[in-house]
Amino acid sequence: MKKKVKILLTNDDGINAPGLYALYKEMKKEGEVFIVAPDSEKSAVGHAITLSDPLRVSNFYKNDDFFGYAVNGTPSDCVKIAYWALDIRPDILISGINLGSNTGINIIYSGTVSAATEGMFLDVPSFAISLTTFTHPNFKIAAQFARRLSRVVLQNGLPKGTLLNVNVPAVDDEKEIAGIQITRQGKAHYREEFDKRNDPHNRIYYWLTGQKVELEEDDDVDDRAILNNKISITPIHFDLTDYQTMEKLKRWDFADLLREDKE
Amino acid sequence: MKKKVKILLTNDDGINAPGLYALYKEMKKEGEVFIVAPDSEKSAVGHAITLSDPLRVSNFYKNDDFFGYAVNGTPSDCVKIAYWALDIRPDILISGINLGSNTGINIIYSGTVSAATEGMFLDVPSFAISLTTFTHPNFKIAAQFARRLSRVVLQNGLPKGTLLNVNVPAVDDEKEIAGIQITRQGKAHYREEFDKRNDPHNRIYYWLTGQKVELEEDDDVDDRAILNNKISITPIHFDLTDYQTMEKLKRWDFADLLREDKE
Repeated sequence: MKKKVKILLTNDDGINAPGLYALYKEMKKEGEVFIVAPDSEKSAVGHAITLSDPLRVSNFYKNDDFFGYAVNGTPSDCVKIAYWALDIRPDILISGINLGSNTGINIIYSGTVSAATEGMFLDVPSFAISLTTFTHPNFKIAAQFARRLSRVVLQNGLPKGTLLNVNVPAVDDEKEIAGIQITRQGKAHYREEFDKRNDPHNRIYYWLTGQKVELEEDDDVDDRAILNNKISITPIHFDLTDYQTMEKLKRWDFADLLREDKE
Repeated sequence: MKKKVKILLTNDDGINAPGLYALYKEMKKEGEVFIVAPDSEKSAVGHAITLSDPLRVSNFYKNDDFFGYAVNGTPSDCVKIAYWALDIRPDILISGINLGSNTGINIIYSGTVSAATEGMFLDVPSFAISLTTFTHPNFKIAAQFARRLSRVVLQNGLPKGTLLNVNVPAVDDEKEIAGIQITRQGKAHYREEFDKRNDPHNRIYYWLTGQKVELEEDDDVDDRAILNNKISITPIHFDLTDYQTMEKLKRWDFADLLREDKE
């Protein structure tokens, strides 16, 4: 008998998020599903981990068919605790389905991508999946795609140190999807603004806001693929070394930097 | 008359941290210093940014000579708010001096490095600086080095999209420092454990803990340079695309992934 595939799901929108539920409904057709997710929304927490506070794990039930572990921590915490404390040893990890895209520079702030990164560090084939809309999300198409992609990933494996960042365009009918594009992380980022306000006690506070700035028009850029109604798949890794600049720096004159300060 | 250099300092240990104060004492010899830092310790928050809560800025004074803006947010928030809300336009940004090293895989969790990354995104030459000890820190040598390095960085500039991650070995006398090494980000990481405990109400909770696992012995690895008593300087960037794997993925068979599910 074929061994049942063990699937670990997590997210950053919280264990009660509809994107996670939609993903679960599809993935349970593929194997044994474990869910370990934040007990509340943890968007934009990036790779944050909790060192100064104790972590707690609670049972979470929904709709008679959904059981998961809710953690009072970040997405990164969830994956670490699933593996090291709950002894879950998945064959694959999927993080999502995130409400809103994770593309360009913004992936460094993404809890969804960070959770998949944690899976990759544990040598578990991992991908993050996001639906590129905040309004009227229809998670079903992305969930079905996640399921099919999980098979291809399990079949091919992923290179050590690499995870996939997947973005699915928001469409009503799967037929509207124009294809799958292997992409690179674009340079799109937010031009930030702070909305300055006075609270009822006349103290100033700020809300972070901003406008997305698109910079590139190449077809193989993540944001561009989505604009073209394609599913974007970007392989990412976390060797952040800028090897080119390493060579440049070696030619800098550091001679004075360890001498006694004469000035 | 030469224009005064504008220097923005921040950190993740909080505005009251001795590492920031030591850095300030040195950097004020170089130019006009602005300090915008978290109002409390924000270690291991990575690139977390605050979207769901209002941010507040308070004046912070220390020892008659130190003035800064304290923000109830993360290191990334601090740099964004310094630039976009407080209109500080620095010539250079320095994040630190962090208590404890920022090397290997762990730099993705580092608030110190994330703050310098935010500077880089704003096209401000930026570096993060950490002292590789938690016990008996002597920040003076690292602070002096930061000052000298700032001159070299201002003179040479940094390539767009690149920042420097600097780690200074903990020594009592500068003469013990064996040199400066241009390094790459090593693969050192933590093998995590969770310390499982019962609280006074007999509820289970977990503390994240772990042991650092060193993997490489090459001289040009960040952690190895420090073991050799050298200052490690790693240029890092945030194009996370794994270009090699991109080519591999293009050869995967995605034909079935957009077809109606027959099973």
